[in-house]
Amino acid sequence: MSKLPNVGTTIFTVMSALAAQHKAINLSQGFPDFDCSEILKQLVNEAMEQGHNQYAPMPGIMPLREAIAEKISNLYGQNVNPDTEITITPGGTYAIFTAIATCISAGDEVIIFEPAYDSYIPNVLVNGGVPVLIPLSYPDYHIDWQLVRSRITPRTKMIMLNTPHNPTGSILTEADIQELEKLVTEFNILILSDEVYEHLVYDGAKHLSILRYPALFRNSFVTFSFGKVFHITGWKMGYCVAPAHLMQEYRKVHQYLCFSVNTPMQYGITGFLKTPEHYLSLPAFFQQKRDHFLQLMADSRFTPLQSCGSYFQLMRYDRISDEGDKDFTIRITKEFGVASIPVSAFYQEGKDDHVVRFCFAKRTETLEKAVERLRKI
Amino acid sequence: MSKLPNVGTTIFTVMSALAAQHKAINLSQGFPDFDCSEILKQLVNEAMEQGHNQYAPMPGIMPLREAIAEKISNLYGQNVNPDTEITITPGGTYAIFTAIATCISAGDEVIIFEPAYDSYIPNVLVNGGVPVLIPLSYPDYHIDWQLVRSRITPRTKMIMLNTPHNPTGSILTEADIQELEKLVTEFNILILSDEVYEHLVYDGAKHLSILRYPALFRNSFVTFSFGKVFHITGWKMGYCVAPAHLMQEYRKVHQYLCFSVNTPMQYGITGFLKTPEHYLSLPAFFQQKRDHFLQLMADSRFTPLQSCGSYFQLMRYDRISDEGDKDFTIRITKEFGVASIPVSAFYQEGKDDHVVRFCFAKRTETLEKAVERLRKI
Ligand SMILES: CSCCC(=O)C(=O)O
Ligand SMILES: CSCCC(=O)C(=O)O
Repeated sequence: MSKLPNVGTTIFTVMSALAAQHKAINLSQGFPDFDCSEILKQLVNEAMEQGHNQYAPMPGIMPLREAIAEKISNLYGQNVNPDTEITITPGGTYAIFTAIATCISAGDEVIIFEPAYDSYIPNVLVNGGVPVLIPLSYPDYHIDWQLVRSRITPRTKMIMLNTPHNPTGSILTEADIQELEKLVTEFNILILSDEVYEHLVYDGAKHLSILRYPALFRNSFVTFSFGKVFHITGWKMGYCVAPAHLMQEYRKVHQYLCFSVNTPMQYGITGFLKTPEHYLSLPAFFQQKRDHFLQLMADSRFTPLQSCGSYFQLMRYDRISDEGDKDFTIRITKEFGVASIPVSAFYQEGKDDHVVRFCFAKRTETLEKAVERLRKI
Repeated sequence: MSKLPNVGTTIFTVMSALAAQHKAINLSQGFPDFDCSEILKQLVNEAMEQGHNQYAPMPGIMPLREAIAEKISNLYGQNVNPDTEITITPGGTYAIFTAIATCISAGDEVIIFEPAYDSYIPNVLVNGGVPVLIPLSYPDYHIDWQLVRSRITPRTKMIMLNTPHNPTGSILTEADIQELEKLVTEFNILILSDEVYEHLVYDGAKHLSILRYPALFRNSFVTFSFGKVFHITGWKMGYCVAPAHLMQEYRKVHQYLCFSVNTPMQYGITGFLKTPEHYLSLPAFFQQKRDHFLQLMADSRFTPLQSCGSYFQLMRYDRISDEGDKDFTIRITKEFGVASIPVSAFYQEGKDDHVVRFCFAKRTETLEKAVERLRKI
């Protein structure tokens, strides 16, 4: 009867609940423990007061779409048409699901790299599609393009990318983009690029948005999140950018899935986007957190892997234990009071490299308290 | 390539845009032109100020689910478990889509009565299902249960109900409930009951929620909207109620579709629900609008059909014109400055009874100005 017989409760809910139960510091689920800007709240409040409380237009309010188009033009040099190529969504996860629901029918194959954000595979399955799972290299989590080619079939419909990458923090490189361009020229494959951490890229690296590359953008849905960048994960606001011929199909699904998105929050974010500093300041802000976390952890028995972007830092714990990573994360939550995410949860078959994910999008005190505990292990 | 080749832009967007273009009074799309309560806005503002801006739990915040369970217990005498049987959604349309995505796979048949709210058929199609369309009687818009039985096959998976009914304002009766009980006892069919207008029932009639009937609820998803009842259609807040064994599957889809719903708005609505008067006052409030609209229209050449509930009043215009209802609504929007919805838009094959739908969820002045114009026709 079940369309998702092998799906349980998402690992984020499981670990956040375990953290709450054991009063552990929660470095598991990806959300900040600090608040958003007072300005942003004030802007939403003003929108409510001005009576912006009824349906927004189906694709989103035009001033917000225009502000996004301007940001894209400034950052990625691509002119996207706010009228036909941008749709506001209730969050990044929804934006991804809707792209899959738009394109994937029974039997269509979708290439997904593992470790993968845990909604990707169920999203494909619920639409009757077939996930084609390809492992990223370990421990640098890059794409083996030869392997990708070997897995392409006449049923391959879509390839899913995620840069900066959750859970690993790896990012796409120019070499990846070249391989991708060859691939989509040769085969007619759609791209779904999850870029919810677009502004969270460190050490001076450049976020290689698919939006930069007209030859790729032509075939792509690119999804973004306001929650992850403006510290409002609970507002569930995001958007999808796609060329008009794809966006037309996307909106057919969206208009009957939730029709439109929270109106006062759209106005609030529109106002907030007028100050580019609100997003231009993010790389430095989050890099400082990553660096501080790494520095504090240097004295621990965890071994860091490289994080180039996102909220996340992976750590090997093989100097501590040879437990599986699920057992390990549960135990350290209970015994040491710090919750993290087992990276095996991002593999369908539970491939276990003895690596755990910590979210460093937290206040300095939180990180310091957490590491004090982690050092005891 | 398209999964929805025959789907255009929803009629609500088309008519609201036409209304804006011609500066017409918009009695088309179903939303109030008056604002929500200041108390409700204040409660949301307080939630933002208190820092409730990160992810809510996947099924919704517990205090809101508890408040809903209490309301259901008081109004419909059913004890539903807030932990396992209620999930908060970004609006009623999303709540409906997700129930369909949870249950319908390629080839599954879904019984839909026409005229039908325009998301139902595309929702079934995008999930690979087969809509089985059954006309309601005309002009009283009731279900012919014999006809329903004759259309049941081994592939029949679900029957969709909508009470109070959009666009017609008809409501389910005790006789309907008895037939439905016989049907689901005899055949193993799921029920999806769209009850977004639950509080908008007039002339002392009782809203026969599926939640009242344990033998039906066992097999049902029942969907609700805060937007339609608290004058906040733009906040996109609703919920689904289903027995635990169905809700478990529903949440598997929901957790990967949008994961969770706007946190500060959930807190705001929780506070607002503490005063039952906020919803108990609604039947009288909207009935007064319906009655006023009907009284004003008595002098026009439109002929009202019966509206027992919802935001809507149907009107025949056969004393005015023999145009099709699409042409008629477009013309009166342009020439007379009042937008309405052609009821044929709610039929897949465009069955045209020369009936149009007016939304009376409007300020008294708006209704008066609109009727002044409509009387000139
Ligand atoms: C939608 S809950 C998960 C948040 C997140 O992106 C993560 O922790 O990976
Ligand atoms: C989601 S837009 C449509 C609003 C509505 O319910 C209607 O007008 O019927």
